Amino acid sequence: MKIAVLGYGTVGRGVVKIIDEQVADVEVSRILELPDRISESRMTSSYVDIVNDSQVEVVVECMGGLEPAHTYILAALNAGKHVVTSNKAVVAEYFAEFVEAANAHGVGLLIEASVGGGIPWIASIIKARRIDAISSFSGIMNGTTNYIVYKMLKDGSDFSEVLSKAQEMGYAERDPSADIDGIDVRNKTVITASVAFDVACTKELPVTGIRTLSKHDLALFGSHERTVKLLGRGVQRDGRYAVAVEPVAVSTSSLEANVPSNFNLVTLDADTVGELKFYGQGAGSLPTGNAIVQDVLDCTAGIRPRYDFSRGLEYDPGLLRSDYVFRTEADVEGSRLFEPGAVLVSDITSERARGLLDEALRTDPTTFMAAIVKES
Amino acid sequence: MKIAVLGYGTVGRGVVKIIDEQVADVEVSRILELPDRISESRMTSSYVDIVNDSQVEVVVECMGGLEPAHTYILAALNAGKHVVTSNKAVVAEYFAEFVEAANAHGVGLLIEASVGGGIPWIASIIKARRIDAISSFSGIMNGTTNYIVYKMLKDGSDFSEVLSKAQEMGYAERDPSADIDGIDVRNKTVITASVAFDVACTKELPVTGIRTLSKHDLALFGSHERTVKLLGRGVQRDGRYAVAVEPVAVSTSSLEANVPSNFNLVTLDADTVGELKFYGQGAGSLPTGNAIVQDVLDCTAGIRPRYDFSRGLEYDPGLLRSDYVFRTEADVEGSRLFEPGAVLVSDITSERARGLLDEALRTDPTTFMAAIVKES
Repeated sequence: MKIAVLGYGTVGRGVVKIIDEQVADVEVSRILELPDRISESRMTSSYVDIVNDSQVEVVVECMGGLEPAHTYILAALNAGKHVVTSNKAVVAEYFAEFVEAANAHGVGLLIEASVGGGIPWIASIIKARRIDAISSFSGIMNGTTNYIVYKMLKDGSDFSEVLSKAQEMGYAERDPSADIDGIDVRNKTVITASVAFDVACTKELPVTGIRTLSKHDLALFGSHERTVKLLGRGVQRDGRYAVAVEPVAVSTSSLEANVPSNFNLVTLDADTVGELKFYGQGAGSLPTGNAIVQDVLDCTAGIRPRYDFSRGLEYDPGLLRSDYVFRTEADVEGSRLFEPGAVLVSDITSERARGLLDEALRTDPTTFMAAIVKES
Repeated sequence: MKIAVLGYGTVGRGVVKIIDEQVADVEVSRILELPDRISESRMTSSYVDIVNDSQVEVVVECMGGLEPAHTYILAALNAGKHVVTSNKAVVAEYFAEFVEAANAHGVGLLIEASVGGGIPWIASIIKARRIDAISSFSGIMNGTTNYIVYKMLKDGSDFSEVLSKAQEMGYAERDPSADIDGIDVRNKTVITASVAFDVACTKELPVTGIRTLSKHDLALFGSHERTVKLLGRGVQRDGRYAVAVEPVAVSTSSLEANVPSNFNLVTLDADTVGELKFYGQGAGSLPTGNAIVQDVLDCTAGIRPRYDFSRGLEYDPGLLRSDYVFRTEADVEGSRLFEPGAVLVSDITSERARGLLDEALRTDPTTFMAAIVKES
């Protein structure tokens, strides 16, 4: 089978390397690259060449960003080609539109690499759903922020110090907002919820990052035998669902608390299979390339996930409730003292907590907030 | 598709319940049950009825034990029926014979439920192998022994105390040898190695359980920031492989150390995807039933793993080396003091360690041994 790879950055190179060296039945026949970087005969800078090449059965999009990825993916689906992508931003934004085009043309849309890198997460959700309804999911879906918290705890350093080092070493972007403000996790949460609950998940969910996390916050939660992890979460019940992205103070004896470095750990819960957790490299050329090649091989084997999104599940933020701790000098409505300098608000929704955080940040821009989820 | 279920114990009931309630395209048309327990029209006590029923496409074996399971599985494969089984003892013993029969008749042999209960472990190995060679695996594969160590640590109880309670509550068998002496993990390790390395794995591997583990041992390792877990392990390199089952003193900050209750956690390591870990319920009616039904659905979808076992990988116990701690009053050859009452032997094979343990047990039958694996 012949495939085309769009984009020859970290992920695209990984895909080409894995297929060239380790997969016999698949050939990368075209690579879309910038005009000034064409270095081998498979490369072209014209997408029209690729979309009009009837021998190309699968288009693998590794460009990232919304445009032209969105246009190229749609064009490939509309040309009757399967699409494999690692681009979480474009899938989170246009998932329903892509699904409609894929279903209309009877082709596959495969997105394993968009969440959890090399972890077989999307495939595992789809597999679980053959039998079970997924009642909830949650997970560490961003390696950069896990690395930051891990190093802060390990070295006793503060946030900005670790972030600078991570940027120097190439673990964090020069503009780290997408990671530390939870945008990357939001995209992965939207995609996961869409797959797990078979719904075009809302993009209007509460999203809080860890930008204001200090080593004192980690010490404070540490004295309660908890540590902080940035989690994406979702639940469904009785025809309704809710999703959120926020720092969660997890027990130090949980698996989540012990995830090292830049690894990811994602969990699903379902009726008959119970709780399943999946751990692995959430990013990187080869792990993400591996996930993409797995999708390509599924295509070759005739395995093509089909989404529907017509279930009409209602978004109800009231389903996600926790206790929340705010470390702040601001007054927080409905709170009581938790520790000196920190207050607790019991049993509110993620949405309400996000609202209270916005208010507190106006008075004290260093305010940090974390959910305290009850242990199962 | 019509299927037959052999055995109507914990797992068989789970399978029938899940299929009856949650799977539309599959019908359990026959159930093999003891003559005095026939309670519904699908039940028969005659296996001949089932193997001669041309409408039955898949035989699901949930009887356990070697015979008649072995004979029934072979008869089904030879009759051109796919076989799904949760029976680790029979698969570990007759894997190569079953594979030969399945390949000769072009039918599937599906064994997901035989290792790790509801965890999609076998399928994940098979999937990883489409791209990568699996360089190593290891895991907590027995819920009963994990529960025993977990409760010993949590309550400060000793081994026999926790075992009695576990037996009362039905978490452990009245004869617990298969669990606490590592036989159950041995079977799962043999199966995992066979799938991961595509070899008819030797049954002559070093196997050590946790029968002599005391709360003082846990305290001793605890003072080195380690805890004890019973692990099955395997490695392959340069056309050779090795496997072992033994207690391992893992770091308290590892995911393994924090696996609670009777859960399982299994890890594979491969070239491009890196380290992947899978966590879930390793036993129980519904999780194991779920794994079986997943295999049945794979059969329906035409997905049938094919084993070969003709690679000629050589068994070389020299590949698995660690430092070992022996808590014993016996003299141990080549050892130096580790802590009062315990000695350490550096860099020996699992096989050599098992030999040294046998010698020590002759002098001090309470001797406990654990490998100290270097952190990756």
